[in-house]
Amino acid sequence: MYNKAYQRREPQLKVGLSCRFFSTDDDKEITCTMSNLMEEFESVEALLKKLPPDDYKKLKNVLFGTETYELPLSENVSKMAENYNFDVLSCKFSCEKEELRPPRIVRVGIFQNKIPMCPETPIVKQREAVHRMAKDAIRTAAAGGVNIFCFQETWSKFSYMIEARLFEQKCRDMPFAFCTKEKLPWTEYAENAKHGPSTLFLSELAKMYNMVIVSNILERDETHGDTIWNAAVFIDNHGDYLGKHRKNHIPRVGDFNESSYYFEGNTGHPVFDTEFGKIAANICYGRHHPLNWMMFALNGAEIVFNPSATIGDLSEPLWGIEARCNAIANGYFTCAINRVGTEIFPREFCSGDKKPAHRNFGHFYGSSYVTAPNGSRSPGLSRVRNGLLIAELDLNLCRQVRDKWGFRMTQRLEMYSQCLNKAIQPDFVPQVIRK
Amino acid sequence: MYNKAYQRREPQLKVGLSCRFFSTDDDKEITCTMSNLMEEFESVEALLKKLPPDDYKKLKNVLFGTETYELPLSENVSKMAENYNFDVLSCKFSCEKEELRPPRIVRVGIFQNKIPMCPETPIVKQREAVHRMAKDAIRTAAAGGVNIFCFQETWSKFSYMIEARLFEQKCRDMPFAFCTKEKLPWTEYAENAKHGPSTLFLSELAKMYNMVIVSNILERDETHGDTIWNAAVFIDNHGDYLGKHRKNHIPRVGDFNESSYYFEGNTGHPVFDTEFGKIAANICYGRHHPLNWMMFALNGAEIVFNPSATIGDLSEPLWGIEARCNAIANGYFTCAINRVGTEIFPREFCSGDKKPAHRNFGHFYGSSYVTAPNGSRSPGLSRVRNGLLIAELDLNLCRQVRDKWGFRMTQRLEMYSQCLNKAIQPDFVPQVIRK
Repeated sequence: MYNKAYQRREPQLKVGLSCRFFSTDDDKEITCTMSNLMEEFESVEALLKKLPPDDYKKLKNVLFGTETYELPLSENVSKMAENYNFDVLSCKFSCEKEELRPPRIVRVGIFQNKIPMCPETPIVKQREAVHRMAKDAIRTAAAGGVNIFCFQETWSKFSYMIEARLFEQKCRDMPFAFCTKEKLPWTEYAENAKHGPSTLFLSELAKMYNMVIVSNILERDETHGDTIWNAAVFIDNHGDYLGKHRKNHIPRVGDFNESSYYFEGNTGHPVFDTEFGKIAANICYGRHHPLNWMMFALNGAEIVFNPSATIGDLSEPLWGIEARCNAIANGYFTCAINRVGTEIFPREFCSGDKKPAHRNFGHFYGSSYVTAPNGSRSPGLSRVRNGLLIAELDLNLCRQVRDKWGFRMTQRLEMYSQCLNKAIQPDFVPQVIRK
Repeated sequence: MYNKAYQRREPQLKVGLSCRFFSTDDDKEITCTMSNLMEEFESVEALLKKLPPDDYKKLKNVLFGTETYELPLSENVSKMAENYNFDVLSCKFSCEKEELRPPRIVRVGIFQNKIPMCPETPIVKQREAVHRMAKDAIRTAAAGGVNIFCFQETWSKFSYMIEARLFEQKCRDMPFAFCTKEKLPWTEYAENAKHGPSTLFLSELAKMYNMVIVSNILERDETHGDTIWNAAVFIDNHGDYLGKHRKNHIPRVGDFNESSYYFEGNTGHPVFDTEFGKIAANICYGRHHPLNWMMFALNGAEIVFNPSATIGDLSEPLWGIEARCNAIANGYFTCAINRVGTEIFPREFCSGDKKPAHRNFGHFYGSSYVTAPNGSRSPGLSRVRNGLLIAELDLNLCRQVRDKWGFRMTQRLEMYSQCLNKAIQPDFVPQVIRK
């Protein structure tokens, strides 16, 4: 146990230096060198803005698309966010007016966060604290007119860890513990999708704020052999549980030892038809799988959330690519949400990368963003701080873009259905041409 | 006809001004305002390099991945390129050494170009000129050690057009004529894949330089009803015709009226097993279709070329996303090649965008690039000039990345095969959950 974790003897605000904690087991000093913190800059946008305005504009148009506008929010929103110590960004996507269909304006809010309590706090109190943080975020989103709110992956899970960030001590990470391969205490945080504490808690807020909430949790299915799943729970704006989607693709890469905890989902690709649009969740590693995205489109999704937890060394250059590419390919909005912070665990673990066993999971780089079906994207949230991104969309844009590009009609699904039927046979012979 | 096209009376080198040509039909002045030229900067990389070096490095790592290195080329290469008036860029992708497999080092060369002759030149002479340009490019690539060379989409087609670029008059575009919906003269340039002039011409060069060449042409199939196709021809390093792949997905978007000229390909997703690796071509609009990319992977491709022709207003923010995302998803290298220049046609055409009929197709923005299966990408070629990009790859990286990320094994193709079998039924009921 590391109950003096936050009593650093030499506060060092400079990024990239080593960080020292003290263990209560033996009161020995623990030094964690975080070389990857060297790279912890605020955000891609913050760096790009250092360019001359003309150059910035040209580059932004090519890199991020041109079709986003400022979305003014009431002063109250920024005050609340400041009070709760997280960033707020907002933007609006363009859409043409139609003659027969009225606009279908929706505001989505996506939230990236760390855990709010010191890890040695008793579990029940931690839960209260993480729920308090969630409540603050949802209240702020409500003040910003958000209709659909989504957390990052397994936001409600929390437990032992040491906060390694050298700045912004007020806000701390919750752990993504699958690197450890340990079962207890991590599996204790799995909860029932329909009746668990997170769902009950959020149902109240959903009703209070007339808001659809997507809550990605570690699910415990007590009625089917106490199995564990990684599931997104959908709660409607009347506080009613709509259903759940279980993560379809489970990683076995680097520290993401998730297949030790739960299996590939068995709930298909459900799309939830809410008062604010047809929504779905492609959970974390599922964003690498184009067919996972595609099936949500074939089931009619207009917004697909991608609640994630991923670190810099593994995936950061891929982050801006995948959710965006699949918004384009499928003609819907995607909302990619990643956690923030660097997590250091009590016991060492190894990462299969030929490096020594270590405690540091690497830096979760946040950078949550929203993409429209035309490929235009919002600015990204910070790489280092909690944040709420509010994006205003007109869902009519989905059909407009589908009509323009025609991807669905030029998709040749019949051909690919035949192709896949052949490709899954163990004796499938690839179409290879040799002289 | 516009045979004074290149006798502009007031040479204006400043980008973004209007451009004036003179028609010989009536000697009236034609003014073409090219608002999109306002945006014609050199390249994304050139702008990013204006940042302080530290910021540039951080941004580059996030935007482009970290795993490319300098690839020195002999001085001769740059001299030749300078002489032939095109840019040369080179880079090298990293790969781990293995114990049992020797490295499989391959150099690919991708070439983006405009047509080299004035459009009023007789057709046979134009063909000679475009072939001369191709020869120059291939000779330079050979000097740079290139093993596999690929052109942009329908590189060998050429005809009537007016060069609208205000600078670099020495090099001019060839037209991408499908905007016009006119058949003659454009359809005259369709040629037999195996015995046509482009293939015969390139076979000699392929043999001479021990180089595999991928040549995307407008194909005429005389033995099957004189049908026209958009096809990539594969010629091996002994000069032998290996086979062809016909474009699988045909656009009907903006000015890309290609479905007026040819239909969806009927050649499947062939992978060509050459001495330098297993290669394939996903032609232009096919890059928007994840299943097209996927089938080349299931057939064993290690490098997939994407010969393209696409303009700024339509697709530039998507360009850096799609070929890259699909390199990641499929565990192979992708090489995205786009033409350069702004093309102005003799007669007006309309674009279905509520704007008046016009002659300007918009700016083809080049920016050709290569992506490794780990998502790292090369720098992009210029947005405005002819260029050759030489990238050195170790094909062993494909399997290394597949082993690391496990996308193929976590892909659940059996599930998706069943999903698609259902989705293609006319009475398919999407999986939608309503209260």
